[in-house]
Amino acid sequence: MSASKVQTNVDLDKERIKCNFNIQELTYIIDGGKHKTLQRRQIENNVFTSGKHEDQVPDECLSLKERYENAVRKSLDYGDLVRNELLAITGLENFGTPILRRTADAFFKEISPLLLHLGMFVPTIMGQCTAEQQAKWLPLALNLEIYGTYAQTELGHGTFIRGLETTATYDSSTEEFVLHTPTLTAYKWWGGGLGKTANHCIVVAQLYTKGKCYGVHTFIVQIRDAETHEPLPGIKVGEIGPKMGFNTADNGYLGFDHYRIPRENMCMKNAQVLKDGTYMKLGNAKLTYGTMVFVRVTLVSDSAFNLAKAATIAVRYSAVRRQSEAKPGAPEPQVLDYPTQQHKLFICISSALAMQFTANWLWKTFTKYLSEMKKGNVDNLPELHALSSCLKAVSTSDAAAYIEQCRLACGGHGYMTSSRLPHIYSFVVATRTYEGDYTVLLLQTARFLIKAWEQAESGVNLTPTVSYLSRACKVKNTWENSSEGIIRSFEAVAAGKIAHCVKNIREKMQNGLDLDEAWLLTTNLLVSAAEAHCRAVLLRVYHEEAKRLTEESSLNVKEVVDQLVQLYLTYWSLERTGDLLRYTSISENNIHQLEKKYEELLAAIRPNAVGLVDAFDICDEILQSTLGAYDGRVYERLMEEALKTPLNSESVNPAFHKYLKPYRQAKL
Amino acid sequence: MSASKVQTNVDLDKERIKCNFNIQELTYIIDGGKHKTLQRRQIENNVFTSGKHEDQVPDECLSLKERYENAVRKSLDYGDLVRNELLAITGLENFGTPILRRTADAFFKEISPLLLHLGMFVPTIMGQCTAEQQAKWLPLALNLEIYGTYAQTELGHGTFIRGLETTATYDSSTEEFVLHTPTLTAYKWWGGGLGKTANHCIVVAQLYTKGKCYGVHTFIVQIRDAETHEPLPGIKVGEIGPKMGFNTADNGYLGFDHYRIPRENMCMKNAQVLKDGTYMKLGNAKLTYGTMVFVRVTLVSDSAFNLAKAATIAVRYSAVRRQSEAKPGAPEPQVLDYPTQQHKLFICISSALAMQFTANWLWKTFTKYLSEMKKGNVDNLPELHALSSCLKAVSTSDAAAYIEQCRLACGGHGYMTSSRLPHIYSFVVATRTYEGDYTVLLLQTARFLIKAWEQAESGVNLTPTVSYLSRACKVKNTWENSSEGIIRSFEAVAAGKIAHCVKNIREKMQNGLDLDEAWLLTTNLLVSAAEAHCRAVLLRVYHEEAKRLTEESSLNVKEVVDQLVQLYLTYWSLERTGDLLRYTSISENNIHQLEKKYEELLAAIRPNAVGLVDAFDICDEILQSTLGAYDGRVYERLMEEALKTPLNSESVNPAFHKYLKPYRQAKL
Repeated sequence: MSASKVQTNVDLDKERIKCNFNIQELTYIIDGGKHKTLQRRQIENNVFTSGKHEDQVPDECLSLKERYENAVRKSLDYGDLVRNELLAITGLENFGTPILRRTADAFFKEISPLLLHLGMFVPTIMGQCTAEQQAKWLPLALNLEIYGTYAQTELGHGTFIRGLETTATYDSSTEEFVLHTPTLTAYKWWGGGLGKTANHCIVVAQLYTKGKCYGVHTFIVQIRDAETHEPLPGIKVGEIGPKMGFNTADNGYLGFDHYRIPRENMCMKNAQVLKDGTYMKLGNAKLTYGTMVFVRVTLVSDSAFNLAKAATIAVRYSAVRRQSEAKPGAPEPQVLDYPTQQHKLFICISSALAMQFTANWLWKTFTKYLSEMKKGNVDNLPELHALSSCLKAVSTSDAAAYIEQCRLACGGHGYMTSSRLPHIYSFVVATRTYEGDYTVLLLQTARFLIKAWEQAESGVNLTPTVSYLSRACKVKNTWENSSEGIIRSFEAVAAGKIAHCVKNIREKMQNGLDLDEAWLLTTNLLVSAAEAHCRAVLLRVYHEEAKRLTEESSLNVKEVVDQLVQLYLTYWSLERTGDLLRYTSISENNIHQLEKKYEELLAAIRPNAVGLVDAFDICDEILQSTLGAYDGRVYERLMEEALKTPLNSESVNPAFHKYLKPYRQAKL
Repeated sequence: MSASKVQTNVDLDKERIKCNFNIQELTYIIDGGKHKTLQRRQIENNVFTSGKHEDQVPDECLSLKERYENAVRKSLDYGDLVRNELLAITGLENFGTPILRRTADAFFKEISPLLLHLGMFVPTIMGQCTAEQQAKWLPLALNLEIYGTYAQTELGHGTFIRGLETTATYDSSTEEFVLHTPTLTAYKWWGGGLGKTANHCIVVAQLYTKGKCYGVHTFIVQIRDAETHEPLPGIKVGEIGPKMGFNTADNGYLGFDHYRIPRENMCMKNAQVLKDGTYMKLGNAKLTYGTMVFVRVTLVSDSAFNLAKAATIAVRYSAVRRQSEAKPGAPEPQVLDYPTQQHKLFICISSALAMQFTANWLWKTFTKYLSEMKKGNVDNLPELHALSSCLKAVSTSDAAAYIEQCRLACGGHGYMTSSRLPHIYSFVVATRTYEGDYTVLLLQTARFLIKAWEQAESGVNLTPTVSYLSRACKVKNTWENSSEGIIRSFEAVAAGKIAHCVKNIREKMQNGLDLDEAWLLTTNLLVSAAEAHCRAVLLRVYHEEAKRLTEESSLNVKEVVDQLVQLYLTYWSLERTGDLLRYTSISENNIHQLEKKYEELLAAIRPNAVGLVDAFDICDEILQSTLGAYDGRVYERLMEEALKTPLNSESVNPAFHKYLKPYRQAKL
């Protein structure tokens, strides 16, 4: 790594010397094995030696147009590297793995305009097209002869897919679909790369044939001329304008004026329209669920990685930054020595680990269920759906909140974009909304939980992640100050909240409301119940996976990982005293014990804090942070970055001669 | 208002028809009287008819350099309007009032580069300079013949002023101060308008004379040539680079290389250095506290206003936006009809009102104490300091969190900068850090609370806002489901937490720690205690001020304001069940009653929600939001704004010809 070549900040040196565990060993655990770490480092090394990821001027200084054009150039450079370096090592089956996302972060502080080409266009063709269709489109797409994206969301329609207004009406006389945008609210909106880059697009539209609507289906649509790149007649396409983040992806709008595409451009794997207009359902559409679950697992893992970045930046900076007097006359301490700072940051380290372990576990669960589903057993689908929904919601929400906590913990300098923290926040907070909004997803999980509770009441056996409900139906929880005791208490909280919702809904129905009305009026309690369930799952999975993964580790690594797990359990117990007091037998005295334990854990983790974030092994090229670089040259980097801003290329800005001076002269 | 001229969204029309209270009447209460509302509207009208606040291209599309230059131009236009329109009506004594800040919002989505000229440079001269000095500098500054700013924070030093490294060493041989920046970390950093705009600057530096350091003092320093605007020899000045917000203010860095200024440029009201170098302390430096408290009151009021903006945008949009099916087959309901949406938004309306009433109350308290202080009675200073510290911390923190909640409640479109919500968030979240970081300020309040508790224990009479501690010392709280009952319970919670901290500190000291060590290890509990105190103050002040201000109101206004107060009390009771269960006699049954009441309040407020945000009376020119405009033309505005982005001025972006096409051709 480049970091070893320069002089390191003396405080960071000391931190690394006092770290009492083998950092490398923990990195292997986080990556999922030594070979994965080595492979990742090799790829990162190859990619970064090209130097093509580097910007001369900070991206945020440029106009949006310049930023976009710069991002297109880098997308192609990056595309080459993907082909030449990454795929050569990992193979096509690992296309889209975390390694790819990590290295992309070095190229794009925000996002590549071709992200949805690889992330949605190609996977949709692979998942929803026939073999014949794939043979036609995949080579073109993978070879970047066409650039595609995915257009589902409309200006007036997001979460509720059935509400989409764009129509695809089959005309058997010409064997074409006629795509049309009947209203302003029907304009496609948000597609990444749709505004200026893509010349093809997967379009989700209401399929009409023989006068009947068959609901939403997907179509491959060419939108720009291959040679001139001009929008084709009947296509209205453009950029949607500046956003909080993602400003290097030209998110676009798209409207159709009775625009015709060949019948063959309908994605025909799960449904077909025959030449004469007959609609035929084929295959099992439920299998397309797989893509959705896959994306959610990816978002949990992304949350973990981005939170790890933020924690790395904030912890290293807090070791370098010195401030105030803990004792009169004493030198200013490292801010990492303040328990208030430890309280803000250590939970972030621990949560990043919790999310990473949970993402890996979810992935394993998913692939197991997927292979069963392919054999025709879809029994586990509801659980998988409920699980991936709430884990996506809670992970993205936790990650966003903790990343902002890291940023705020860096004081004023956390507000500088050169810290990278504002970017990380605006990126992650978007994932809280897209691919299923926080509240909507938790309510989907809640629906599953209410059913599970009713099954538990009637003695039906439940799937693993909700089996605690059967126990909770029968046995009252007793607080016990152990890991298993705390986890069981959180399960009791979740069960108590679910039971409370069930009671609430039944009461309202007894008072004359129908189920939909009763459900609606209980939604705030249901969201809270689903969050409690998800928290219980996170606590259990984190605890069990940590134990499993460190089974053969050295004592010190075992200990430091266990401290992080204990911190997570204790932190959440103290955050949720209200719930625990309501649904378990926890006493005031137990709470004091937890407070004392929490204080001890902060002190125990403190000497290893820098070592722990070093173990995430996020190199400077990916981190791109003035505050978080491995060498801790915080103030030097802040000044170096400041000097790069184009405002500093002239000692006097033209605004002085143009505005300030004439204004003053006019008054003299 | 311009809003009345266009066709309004039909759903918003219906909302306004069903609103059951007099909106105008509530506006007068929020503004502090009918005459204030009318004056404000007149000023806003005069300012906006000039049209000088309007941008042709969305600011965020431009490069940072262009944004800065554009902001300088608008600063001068705005300066003229201030002089010609605003001051003519409100008079100089109201300089810096909320009206000024409101209208500035129409000119600057972020901030004016001259903000600190008016906001810090001029006030410092007025507060810390002698009459003679004021006579010299004030006319130059007020007439914009010089542009000043304020430079205190350094690259390595923020909160802890005593740690500043910049030195001002008196040289009696030339009767000059020699300013010097001894290290990189001593560079001044952050000053708004310092990078490119200011030619003068208030500099805070360690004063040395006759070989002795007298601590930090302020100096007026010319940094650029009046004619050429070039930095003067010995001055290193520039811009610090892009930030999360505030990007139109050229925040700057400043370094001195043995730079000399005349002795007379020291701000000499509270201390002087005589010609021979003798240091003399004069006057009461405690009175400069006034400025600090004033700024904090302003930040509470700013928090209220910005939260009101966010609530206005999110509530109006939620009345226009329709989504999903509450019942199968039924039309998509307004999202404002979902209790989960009401839960997110109504607390924001209520909190904005709570903060505004509290800011006004704090201002009254402050001016009363200030007049006593001027008579030499500084007894109330500690209470005022503690109060303004925690109210600043909690208001800015609440406002930032709720603004982001409003943004997230707008789904994807809240991520568009044209919604204005990302700007409002990045602006307000900065105020959580500057002028005293959240944690630091709460710990200052905690110090006061611990002292107050000790006084209560020994029977000393306490100042009003902590008098509840005397009661709590003696009487155990009993939960009572009334406004006064809830407020007393929150006071019991605060008292319980403070007592818990005292016990904790004493135990640690009995175990051999000294006070500083024991304090440090208790800081996480102390922050929580100070927050609980502040919440109790907010609940009481909001409740009492709302009652007082609506004493002569119509019944319906009384009712709707009371509903908002009840919502605030109930919401916070449910948020803090853990604290209430620990420190009061609240029962599970009481909690269920609160849940039921909360559900009823959401339903009761729902029909008036749009009316309530209309009552904030924030006109479209200030709001500048596609989602929040009075007429609700949400989708039309989103598209209109999108079309303004320069990326849409060409149908094919040059990046196609420059990168995409050659890349493809090279592979064919």
